[in-house]
This record gives sequence, C-alpha cells and structure tokens, in this order.
Amino acid sequence: MNISAETIANFNQSSLINHQRQFEFLANQLEQKGIGVETVVERLRQFQVTVPSWALGTGGTRFGRFAIGGEPRNLSEKIEDVGLLHRFTGNNEAISLHIPWDQTNDYLAIQQLAQQRNIRFDAINSNTFQDQPRQKHSYKFGSLSHTQAEVRQQAIDHHLEVIKIGKELGSKALTLWLGDGSNFPGQVNFRKALERTEASMQEIYAQLPSDWQLLIEYKPFEPAFYSMIIPDWGTALMLCQSLGEQANVLVDLGHHLPNTNIEQIVARLLGVNRLGGFHFNDSHYADDDLTTGAIKPYRLFLIFCELVNGVTQAADLSNGQLAWMIDASHNTKDPLEDLLQATEGILIAYAQALLVDQSALEAAQENNEVTLAQEILQTAFRTDVRPLLAEARYRNGAGLYPLQLFRDLDIRQTLIQARGSASRATGL
Amino acid sequence: MNISAETIANFNQSSLINHQRQFEFLANQLEQKGIGVETVVERLRQFQVTVPSWALGTGGTRFGRFAIGGEPRNLSEKIEDVGLLHRFTGNNEAISLHIPWDQTNDYLAIQQLAQQRNIRFDAINSNTFQDQPRQKHSYKFGSLSHTQAEVRQQAIDHHLEVIKIGKELGSKALTLWLGDGSNFPGQVNFRKALERTEASMQEIYAQLPSDWQLLIEYKPFEPAFYSMIIPDWGTALMLCQSLGEQANVLVDLGHHLPNTNIEQIVARLLGVNRLGGFHFNDSHYADDDLTTGAIKPYRLFLIFCELVNGVTQAADLSNGQLAWMIDASHNTKDPLEDLLQATEGILIAYAQALLVDQSALEAAQENNEVTLAQEILQTAFRTDVRPLLAEARYRNGAGLYPLQLFRDLDIRQTLIQARGSASRATGL
Amino acid sequence: MNISAETIANFNQSSLINHQRQFEFLANQLEQKGIGVETVVERLRQFQVTVPSWALGTGGTRFGRFAIGGEPRNLSEKIEDVGLLHRFTGNNEAISLHIPWDQTNDYLAIQQLAQQRNIRFDAINSNTFQDQPRQKHSYKFGSLSHTQAEVRQQAIDHHLEVIKIGKELGSKALTLWLGDGSNFPGQVNFRKALERTEASMQEIYAQLPSDWQLLIEYKPFEPAFYSMIIPDWGTALMLCQSLGEQANVLVDLGHHLPNTNIEQIVARLLGVNRLGGFHFNDSHYADDDLTTGAIKPYRLFLIFCELVNGVTQAADLSNGQLAWMIDASHNTKDPLEDLLQATEGILIAYAQALLVDQSALEAAQENNEVTLAQEILQTAFRTDVRPLLAEARYRNGAGLYPLQLFRDLDIRQTLIQARGSASRATGL
Amino acid sequence: MNISAETIANFNQSSLINHQRQFEFLANQLEQKGIGVETVVERLRQFQVTVPSWALGTGGTRFGRFAIGGEPRNLSEKIEDVGLLHRFTGNNEAISLHIPWDQTNDYLAIQQLAQQRNIRFDAINSNTFQDQPRQKHSYKFGSLSHTQAEVRQQAIDHHLEVIKIGKELGSKALTLWLGDGSNFPGQVNFRKALERTEASMQEIYAQLPSDWQLLIEYKPFEPAFYSMIIPDWGTALMLCQSLGEQANVLVDLGHHLPNTNIEQIVARLLGVNRLGGFHFNDSHYADDDLTTGAIKPYRLFLIFCELVNGVTQAADLSNGQLAWMIDASHNTKDPLEDLLQATEGILIAYAQALLVDQSALEAAQENNEVTLAQEILQTAFRTDVRPLLAEARYRNGAGLYPLQLFRDLDIRQTLIQARGSASRATGL
Repeated sequence: MNISAETIANFNQSSLINHQRQFEFLANQLEQKGIGVETVVERLRQFQVTVPSWALGTGGTRFGRFAIGGEPRNLSEKIEDVGLLHRFTGNNEAISLHIPWDQTNDYLAIQQLAQQRNIRFDAINSNTFQDQPRQKHSYKFGSLSHTQAEVRQQAIDHHLEVIKIGKELGSKALTLWLGDGSNFPGQVNFRKALERTEASMQEIYAQLPSDWQLLIEYKPFEPAFYSMIIPDWGTALMLCQSLGEQANVLVDLGHHLPNTNIEQIVARLLGVNRLGGFHFNDSHYADDDLTTGAIKPYRLFLIFCELVNGVTQAADLSNGQLAWMIDASHNTKDPLEDLLQATEGILIAYAQALLVDQSALEAAQENNEVTLAQEILQTAFRTDVRPLLAEARYRNGAGLYPLQLFRDLDIRQTLIQARGSASRATGL
Repeated sequence: MNISAETIANFNQSSLINHQRQFEFLANQLEQKGIGVETVVERLRQFQVTVPSWALGTGGTRFGRFAIGGEPRNLSEKIEDVGLLHRFTGNNEAISLHIPWDQTNDYLAIQQLAQQRNIRFDAINSNTFQDQPRQKHSYKFGSLSHTQAEVRQQAIDHHLEVIKIGKELGSKALTLWLGDGSNFPGQVNFRKALERTEASMQEIYAQLPSDWQLLIEYKPFEPAFYSMIIPDWGTALMLCQSLGEQANVLVDLGHHLPNTNIEQIVARLLGVNRLGGFHFNDSHYADDDLTTGAIKPYRLFLIFCELVNGVTQAADLSNGQLAWMIDASHNTKDPLEDLLQATEGILIAYAQALLVDQSALEAAQENNEVTLAQEILQTAFRTDVRPLLAEARYRNGAGLYPLQLFRDLDIRQTLIQARGSASRATGL
Repeated sequence: MNISAETIANFNQSSLINHQRQFEFLANQLEQKGIGVETVVERLRQFQVTVPSWALGTGGTRFGRFAIGGEPRNLSEKIEDVGLLHRFTGNNEAISLHIPWDQTNDYLAIQQLAQQRNIRFDAINSNTFQDQPRQKHSYKFGSLSHTQAEVRQQAIDHHLEVIKIGKELGSKALTLWLGDGSNFPGQVNFRKALERTEASMQEIYAQLPSDWQLLIEYKPFEPAFYSMIIPDWGTALMLCQSLGEQANVLVDLGHHLPNTNIEQIVARLLGVNRLGGFHFNDSHYADDDLTTGAIKPYRLFLIFCELVNGVTQAADLSNGQLAWMIDASHNTKDPLEDLLQATEGILIAYAQALLVDQSALEAAQENNEVTLAQEILQTAFRTDVRPLLAEARYRNGAGLYPLQLFRDLDIRQTLIQARGSASRATGL
Repeated sequence: MNISAETIANFNQSSLINHQRQFEFLANQLEQKGIGVETVVERLRQFQVTVPSWALGTGGTRFGRFAIGGEPRNLSEKIEDVGLLHRFTGNNEAISLHIPWDQTNDYLAIQQLAQQRNIRFDAINSNTFQDQPRQKHSYKFGSLSHTQAEVRQQAIDHHLEVIKIGKELGSKALTLWLGDGSNFPGQVNFRKALERTEASMQEIYAQLPSDWQLLIEYKPFEPAFYSMIIPDWGTALMLCQSLGEQANVLVDLGHHLPNTNIEQIVARLLGVNRLGGFHFNDSHYADDDLTTGAIKPYRLFLIFCELVNGVTQAADLSNGQLAWMIDASHNTKDPLEDLLQATEGILIAYAQALLVDQSALEAAQENNEVTLAQEILQTAFRTDVRPLLAEARYRNGAGLYPLQLFRDLDIRQTLIQARGSASRATGL
C-alpha cells in the first residue's frame, strides 16, 4: 500500500492556513524569548524514530491476544507499513528486525523494497527467549548464561547468524536482550551465570563488525520472576566495559523497578559515554509496553532534557550516536495508530526539551535556585509545541496531522481488505 | 496412574524410625510449652488445599512456554493427577475447574472418576478474558463491564453456564476474576464501567444456588495496564456488599501493588465477615505466580496468623468457611513437584501459626510490648514444624515426604511414557 | 506585610499587552473548537485552594531541616502570609489550621485579622501523632486506636477541643489523620485496633456540628512502618460508612503505594458519594510532599478529569462540595514560592481538564475508540493554558504572574528583615 | 553498668539441661546429614556484628520521637551499653561512631574504657546531611557535590577530621553516606554533580590510611526526594572503581527501590570484589529501619547464602574482609532489646546459610534442577538453628538467651534510675 505525495498535499491543504497561523504565533512568541525556532524545526525534521517489525501487529499478554486484522503477513508487508508511517510522519525512516521472526529467503529483495520506500534497517534483534520448532537445545534454562556449553554455543551461533543478516541489510547494531534468569532462589548461581554470560558475549562481540554497536538491554523481571541475568544498568554497564568500546547500554523505559529515576540513569550512562539508545514505551506498573508519553509525558520530557543537555552542545540527537526505537505492545489499539501516537509523543518531548533555556538553567543550578530551575523546565514543558511538529512534517512533505490522515484515508480497512481480517504478524 | 497404599507404606517404612524420633522430640518440646500437639496434627490432617486444573501443565509467559511432557491431555487425566497428589500428601482432596478449558461432554463420567479417586470439586472458574473460537462477541474491550449490552449478556450467559456445570459436579462456589479494564487514560469511564459490572454481576448472583458462594477476585494490573475494573480489595468489597451475603472476596497473594501489607487486608476482610478464600502463590515483583512460600515464607505465616486468630477460636481452618486454592504458574519446574512444594509451604505456615501462643500474644498486644510480640511470633516461625506435617501425612496414609516419593517413583517419566512428551494441558 | 492593589496593577501593566495577545489568540483557537472560554476563565477565578498553616515555614526530614528565615512566628503572621499569597494569586482565600501548632489565646483577634485580609478558615486539623509537653498520656502506641481507654479518651477530647476552636473561627470541617499503627508483625491486633478506632471516631462524630464534614485521611506507611490503622481508601471508606453521611474520605496524593492509580480511586469515591477533598502534593517515591505538579503533572490532570466529569455536569469545583488543600513540605524551596508554584500547578490541571471535549470523550468510550480517547485527553493536556490562568488572575485583581511578582518585590528579604533569619514556623 | 560472669552463669544454669538436650538432638540430626556442627558453632562464636552508637537511643520519624528513658548521655555510656550487649551475646564486640554526634574531648579515655569492656571501634561515620551549630557553610544544597568549592572543601575537611578521630581510636574504615541530591527535576545537573562528588571523594581518599577501607553507601531517596547523588549500587561501584582498591560498596538493606533483588546485588559486588560490608535492618516499604529479620527473614537468609558461597570457600565471614553493622531506628522498642533481636536475627540467617548443602546445591544448579535447588535452600532455612546460637553463646561465656536475660535483670529500669527518664542519646 502506497500513499502519493499528492494525497498528502491535499490533506495538508485543508488545514494549512490555520496551522500557519498557529505556527507563526508560536514562533513569534519563542523568538521573543531568544529561541531559534528554525533550528528547532530543523532538528525535528531530522529526528528519526525506528519502528520495530514486531510491533506492526497486535500484541498480547499471557492471558490472551485480540487481533485487529490487516496485520502484515511477512517482512515485505512490514516494510510497506513502515514506509506508510514514514510517509505520514517523516520521522520513521527505519525498521528494526527481529530474528527469527523476520527471517526470509531473499534479503536482497527485501533491501530493494526498503530502498524503494526510503526505509533503512536499524539495529537488528536476536531471540533466545523462545524455542523455535527445529531447535536442537532448549532455552528453558537460559541461553548465553546456560550451564551447558552446547546450549550457550547454539545461542552464540544464533547471534552470529543475526549479525550476518544485519550485514546483508545494512544494519549497524545488534540489540541483545536476554530472557535468561531464574524463578526461584537457589536455581542459579548469580556469579557463575554472569561469568558465563560475559564469556558468551565476548564470542559474539569478537565477530561484531568494526562499525557496529552492540546494544545491551537490562530488565529487572519477566520472563524470569526471581532474577534476570542483566537486571539493571549497573550489570549492563559492567558487561559493556568488559566487552569494549562498541558495547553500549540500551535503555528500555519499561524495564525498571517501581519509582526508578530513569532520567538520572540516562545521565549516568551519558557521563561514562556508554548510552547506546532507547526502546521507547510507557508504563504504569511494570513492562506494560504502552504508548510512549501516554502515561508519564513529563518523565519522557525529562529524559529528553538529559539528552539535549548531555549528548551534544548542539542538541542534535540525529547524529547517529544513539539508537531511537519504539518498543511497545499494541493490545487494544490499532498498531499503526499507536505507532503514530508514539512518534508524536516522542517528538513532543524532544521539542519541549529543545525549548529549555539551557544557560538560565545552568545558572539556576549553579546558584541552587530550586524554584527557578523547576520554573525553567516547566515553562518549556507547558508550551504547546504541536505547531512546531506540524511545521517540521509539512516541510518534510509528510502529513500535518498524521493520525487524522490515517483515519481520513481509512487505512485499516484498506489493509484488512488486502490482507484479510485473520492475518497475524509475527511477534509476541 | 495410580499408586497403591502398599507402595506408600513401603516408602514410609524406610524413614519411619527417624521420623518418629524427630516427631517425639518436637512433640515433647512443644508439650512442655503447653501446646496441644495432637490438636495441631489433627488440624494439619484435616486441612485441604485445592489444586487448580490449569496448573497441572507447564505455564508460560507472554514471551514463551517450555513444555515438560506428560501433561494431562484432558479432564480425566487432570483428575488423575490431583488424585495422585492427594495420595502423596493427604492434603489435596479437591480440584478447581476452569471453563471452557475443562469443558467436557460427560460430566457424569468425570464425577465418577473423581469419586473413585476421592477427589471433590471445589470452586469453579469462568473465563471472559480470552476469546474462544466460535464466540460471537469479543472480550477485547471487556466482558461484564463492556459498553455494549450484548457483550455483557454473552459474558453473563457464560457465567450461568459455568454455574450449571459446577452444579453437576458438586461445586459450591463460583470464582469470578475479570480481565476487564483499560490500557490508557480516557479509554474507560471508571464509574460507568463499575456500574455496568455491578449490574452484570447482579444477574449472575441472582442465579447462584443458595448454598453457593460467589468469590470475587481483585487485581491491580495485567492483562490491563492502566486500570482494572476490580483493582483492589476496596472495590471487591463494594461489589460483595452490593450483591449480598453469598458474595465474598477472594485474595490472590500475587494481586497486590508493591509493598502491600496483605495480612492486614485479610484481617480487614475477616473483620467485616467478607473473606471468601485464597489463591496461593508467591511473588517478588508482580503477579509472578511462583510457588507459595518460595519467596516470602514469613508473609505466608503472618497471613495464617490472621486466619488462625480471626476465623475461629478453635483455629480450625477446615470448617468450610474459606476456600483454599493454589494458583501458580509452573514455568520451569515440574508442575506436580511444584504443587507438592506449594502444599508443603502452605501447611508449614499453618502449622507455625498454630504454634503461636495466642494468650501471650494478646497480653503483649494489650500492653504494647512490641519486643515481646515479635518474639512470640518468631518463636513459632523459627520452630521446625516439618515433623508435624510428616506425622499428619503418615496418619492420613499419605507419604512422609511426598516430593521424595514422587522422585523415587519416577512419576514424571511414567507420565511422559503414558501421555507423550508433547502433551499440553489447557491453561495459560 | 501587605501589598497594595496599585503595586499589583503596576506589575501587571508591564506585561499586559503581551498577555492579552496570548489570551486572545488562545481564546480564539478554543472558541473555534466550541469551548466556552469565558466559562473556563470564570471557573478558574472561582477556584480556591487552601493553604495549610504548617507549610508556611521550612519543612524537614528526619535527617534535618534547613531554615530559610522570615518564617511566620505566630498565627497572625501565618494569616498575613496567606493573605499575601491570595493577593498574588486570587486563588488562595483560605487557611487550614493545625492544633496544637496554631493554638492561641485570642481567636477573636485572629478572626478579625483574617477578615481584614479576606481569608477564611477551611478544615481544621488535629494532631495525635506527637506528644505535647504537658500531655498526660503518650501517643507512642497510638491514640484513637490505643489499647488503653484513657489514652483514647485523651485523643477524643483533643478532637473535641479542635472542633471547638474550628467553630470559633468558622471552619466547616475536621480533618483527621492518624499516625496510629505498628512497626512489627504481632504488635497490634488489626481487627481490634480498627474496632477501637471506629468507636473513638463515633464519639468525635457525635459532637460534629451538623453543617461540618469529617474528612478521614488514609496513608499506607510512615510514621508506622509495618501497618497503619487506616492504610488505604477501603478502610477509610469503611469508617465513613460506619460513621454517617458527614464523614468523607480525604485523598492525599502522596499517601499511596507505588504505582497506584489514584484517579481511579477518586472515581470510586465519587461513585459512592464519599469523596471529601484533597491534600495536594507530588511524589516520586513515597510521601515525598513535593510541589503538586512538579513530578507527575499528567496524573494531576487525570485526577481533575475525574473531578470535572464526576463532581457535576457543570464542572464547577467551587461549589463547596469538596475541600481543596495543599499539603507539601518545603525543604529546599522558599515556602511561599513553593505554594505559588503549587497553586499554579493545580490551576493548570483544572484548566486543562475543563478543555476536555466531554461529549467526544463519552462517544469514544462508548465505542471503545482507545486511540481517540487518548487523543482527546492529550489534546487538552498539551494545550498551553497559562494565558487562561493569567486572565483569571487579572480579572480577580491578582498578579498576572505571581511568582515573578513575588521575586520582583523581593518579598522574602522583606520578611527576613521583619521577622529575623532565625524565625521558625510551627510544623514539621 | 556491668554484669558479672557469675550473673550470666547463674542465668544460664537454669536453662542448661534443656538447652543441651536440644543442641545434642539437633547436632545429631545434622551430623547424620554430614554437616560439621562444631565448625558451624565455631563460626557463630567468631561472628561479630557491630553496634552503631546512634542506635542506642530512641529513634524517631519526621513526625515525632517518643523517648524511652535511660538512654546513654555521652560516648562513655554508649560504650558501656555496647559492652553490656556484648556481654549478653558474645557477638557485639565493636561500636561504630558517628561524628560529630560522638565528638568528645578525650579520645584516650574513651579508648581505655573500650578496652576495659573488650569493645573495639569499627568503621567511623561522617555527617554532612545536617548543619551543626557553628558551621560556616550550610549543607542545604549538598556537601561533597555542592556547586560551591568552599562548601565542598568544608565537607572534605570534615571527613579528614573524622579519619583523624578514627585513627586515634583504632578504626579501620570510614563509612560515607551522602544526603546530597535534589528534590525537583532541573535542580541539579546530574553529571556535573557526580563529577564534583568524585573529585571531593578523591581528596578524602588521598588521605585514607593505607590499611583503611572507604565504604560508600547508596540510597535511592530520602532525604532528597527526586534524586540522590549515589542512588544505586551502579553509581557506588563507579565511584569505588574511580577511587582505588580501598574503596568498596556498603549495602544498607533498606536502601533499595521496591522489589529489588538485594541478594543478587550482593553477588554482583562480590563478583567484582567490591563488597565492603552491610548496614543491617529490615523494611516493608522504604528505609523503614526496622529490626533485621523482623519483616523478611528469608531474604536475610538468601543474602547470607550469597556471602557464605561467595566470600570464601571456608564460609568464614569473620576474616575481616567485610564490615557487619546494624543500622536500625528503634522508635517503639527498647533500643537495647531491639539490638539483641537484630543480632539474633542476623546470627540465625548466618547459621541457616551455613547448613546449606553447597555441593548438592551446585549440582542442582548445574543440572537446572529447580525444584531441588529450592528444596536444598528451604531445608536449611526451615531448620530450627536456635540451639546452635545458644551453644555458641554458651561457649563464649555469654547468655544462652540474651533477651530473656536482659528482661530478667530488669536492665532498662536500672538504666533509667542511673541516667534519668529524660536522657536523650545523640542521633536521629
């Protein structure tokens, strides 16, 4: 399915005058405060959030899954869907694959399709938390941390295969999330299990192309409910430091214990130059995998404040240093709509963070002006930045209001007609 | 599969002398402190913990499931498995069914099989958190709370069907757990959704046999990740009070927010005479569904202290007032071994609670003797009560050490040979 | 200290033109969407948030307290400070007293001063969580729940005294928060302690003037660290229902376990007509007592969405049905600045909630349009409502930008000069 | 106050026969399983738990403090109290001081008193979380992390002074816990604040005697409620690695977010050889500072399992490698009784951990025998080890049952008579 530039232009036309009025008013207000609006809009145009292949279909819980229909039936259709999202937003130019869910016979064809849709391949993901039909050894009791050398070797080989696929497609990073852990005290020797994991990772790292990153994810619980082999950023950092400079920590927003100050972790990792990227989602309780910004938008803003302040003086988050990926589970919403909302939520947080008066903030911090520091952040957060996003999209030739466009064009019905109502995307 | 009394007697014989030495020494020590050991042993003999039909096979998470083999393929085999457990422990005389997972054509045959194995049918469970193949309306957006009357009616009808099946089998309670809720702010009108739920429940309650209980379960999250329709004991109690005297609250130990004082909730519900029973499991993080007593055994003991103190002066928890059920998910252990460990964990907590010097505790409480109150509880908890459990089992004709018996007899291998290694029990 | 109308007018004058441009642009945009801006501004003008007398000075933790200077030294100066805040915001017309911290000899003089400053007396608070110098019995082991009748009687008498003072001053509510609880399992008999508490409360309730409310607060922990006598809304509701129609539940935002969905609790209490009011603050971890809206502004907005939707069709929260109070601890900020920020945060949340398209939301909920429901809420939340607040204040004769005004006038220095840098307000 | 050996012997005499019967029966049972009981008893005799000087008086919360009377009025009396505890238990031979709370004029006299009572000085603690009367700069906005160099220097100087005092007394470690942090987003630049902290610590570390350890404590919140400068073990480890080999992480059991798996952190720190020691306490909600083992005794056992397995093959935790300290707040119990219960709780956990069949556990882990691994741990935990503790104390010439001895001798009354009922120990 493809949407023409003309379709989008037509849609934009109907809202254009009002948008421009809003944008101009806001730009004027911001310029009065010394904010370079053009730079902000340019940053928003450049910023790209990767879509995970496994989030294009309906997600589920252990209790059930309620399909929506029209889900992509294969990798080609997934790329089409990401192409569609990118057409609408101008901010989703990459897809992140998951092996074996996205395994295919002809990666060349896939690459050609992607080029045609202006989609590139971001970090590629492995899977050793499930058993596959013809798999020799089971991962029931772990993969890279398993007590038996042959199971670890199988898991290492899988990762090398994933790297090989990634190379064919032009990926530049391998994301490694392990479900390894234990459900009961005593089940696992914590220290030995980590040593085995480290040794396994070293074998994978040794095969990592020199222009790749290894992104290591941490998670406190689920699927293991007593201990996870990499439960926290401290352990992930330990492993990265042991592996080498190409290994960095990936922060999944849902992978933290209750009340964790995530933005401080982001600052810590930036401080030792080991932040690798993000899996964006939101949560109220655990790894809920809800739409980013749907539950705690201020937290998302604070994370972007750390990034804008910490990544570079120029606040340009599109320089390739970090990987930006959505990782949510669309259980009750239309997955594509959910991804549009997530992209919007992320861009809003970034735009707000770009509005923070950095020099005033720095002065307030130096002088311990607590009230003022809060005021500076909230002034940025309370600003309605939606006209800035719309303008960035407009200049990118994308939709002024992507979600409305998606609905006006009745995309879901078109997809259901094309793919059927029982189509099911691979994933969880 | 059936184990003869002789097999058990032979097994017991080998450990008997040492057991008796341990039991006598302990009994003597306890009698010196004025504890009536015979009464304690008798209570342990009487206490029965129901096994859920859905926990006889391997459990899983949304990330995967790793089967063990030899799982029961139908309801008959489930009853056989519970029969086996009861043979080993003497404390598992009932099974709790789940409809439609346990739906069958011939309930009479099932009942006969159960009688033959000395198994009775405890509370029966409904399921409106999943869609079934030929179901007319989807529960994607709720069941008893759904905005559309026809979906609610379908869910009501399902519950009436479940009651009907329960009546055929001799159940005396319906357990109602709803997955209804919302994933995002705004999705659901909290008040209206509860009103609809209440109205739906009233229709079910109206059809409840007069000697039945309706057990209402609460849970703060999962499968819904923003709001659950019955998130806490307060809401569950509200509904019970609205329905009538046959409605009571069921406490699932894993269904609480972090740091909740569950034993106090138990006391609250006992205080208003609305405690209906338990789903036993243990957890470190969320609804982890681990083996009861495997993570926080002291908490389990404290819950039993409330029960022993609150249910009846005579501390007899087997009087039918409350429903005692295991509800765990056996992801990495042999399900039957796990159930044996759970039963042991529960009985240990009960035995310890029976050793609490109630009059000394009451005096310490009256006088605000904090140190002493802790000392009294911990004196009971620190006692090694395993000989009391073994004695109770011995007198019941069950195994002195059920888990060891299970392993010595190589039950799992026998089951795999009989049922195959790919057999899969219905459940999550 | 008093600020003249002229001073405020002068301050406003300098920002007026830009404010009016902002307000008109926003009003125009909102009117296009069918929102009655005048009604919204009117509601914001009417809405009054009470200032607690104990939050006018520096707060502390158990580890220390760092005073700021210029703190009010007596009740008169506290009333002056609230008068000042109200002059600045137009939204702080009431003070909430705390006995014995605000005990004085001449309540008539106090009342006259308050009238002169246009300040009224909102709910009055008792204190049985501390021992006072000449107190006969200690509250170390509880007050209304104490095992000894004479301690309970002393605590009851204290509450009757508090009511008496409140009557003299024109209060219409008694707020009851108990520190009673236990630190160790076994210390307290949960059921008996609640029964004693209920009986004590009944004696207090019997003396409550017929036009008063009794506001009952709950809290899961601190100062007791194992159990609190009223740990949750369920227990608070139980007590209210036992007492009578004048008893309602007060929700302190910081008094919840991790991850609690507070807005759902608000809806539950509204549903049974037992919501009494709020103690506003914000928290990241526990009862942190931070500035409302400083940590989780979206949550505050969601709570106001429930209120706007649930209290009345007309969304008028100033009808006296509910009590609105700040309850924060100003450890590192200037207390008065902090209260200005809190008031702003609360008004922003209310304004955003007033912008929610209620009929569109209701339709989305009825049709389970999850994406749309989120969009409707976030459209309101993302709107920059600050010009509406400024306009409401302007029309009230208050400051367009209260915090800036406070700083421009150098109020803190003036207060320090008048009261000294070592002055210390009563409170925590 | 001093208790003679004869007094203790008399007390022991009355219970001796029954104790010996219990010990012999247990020893016999354990020996049958191949456990070297004599070694276990010897380890329990050697194990020493340090008493903090600040926990000898009543503790409080920010809401209040309820004194007990008879509290030590100066450092001499604190040493007397620890001497008393050690006399009773044989397991409390050291005191941990806190400066300036324990500042005195004559450290020589103090040292002599300590020698006389067989008490040594363990790690010494600094205090930069409070302002002292004649202090030049305030720590309101931090100490070692403060933005101003002169405040940092003052805090550094304080630590050098603390080291000097510690050297005079024979301490071998400095414990560093910082209250530095922030209450609001934006208040502090996370990265710069950590850099400043690190630089300050380097100046302290440079003056650390070569046979000393620097113990760095982490804590997620309180007294700062948005961010703490060292919130987690990851940050503490970072700092230790930056400082050098004498810096190690101290684990305070109450300093973790909800649901944290502490025993895994212990294993992580052991794995990189950076575990420095413990502050023992227990908690239900936050940093509750309750008696160790009073809330989660199984967790304490699991921590000792990691220690026994990880510190040394010989499982000897008394080799000086780690620092063992109690750090609790005695708000409602007699502080001395509470310390006796804490010591008992710790020793019980250690004894249970010593009973774990390490080779069986290792085999179960290697073979992923989950059920068996749990069984092995619980077999040890369920053993009633109290006779082993009593025997160790008996052989040490201490009391068989210290708490009972304390009560029989009516120590608290004696102390109140000697020191008055209004005496107040320094501390929180």
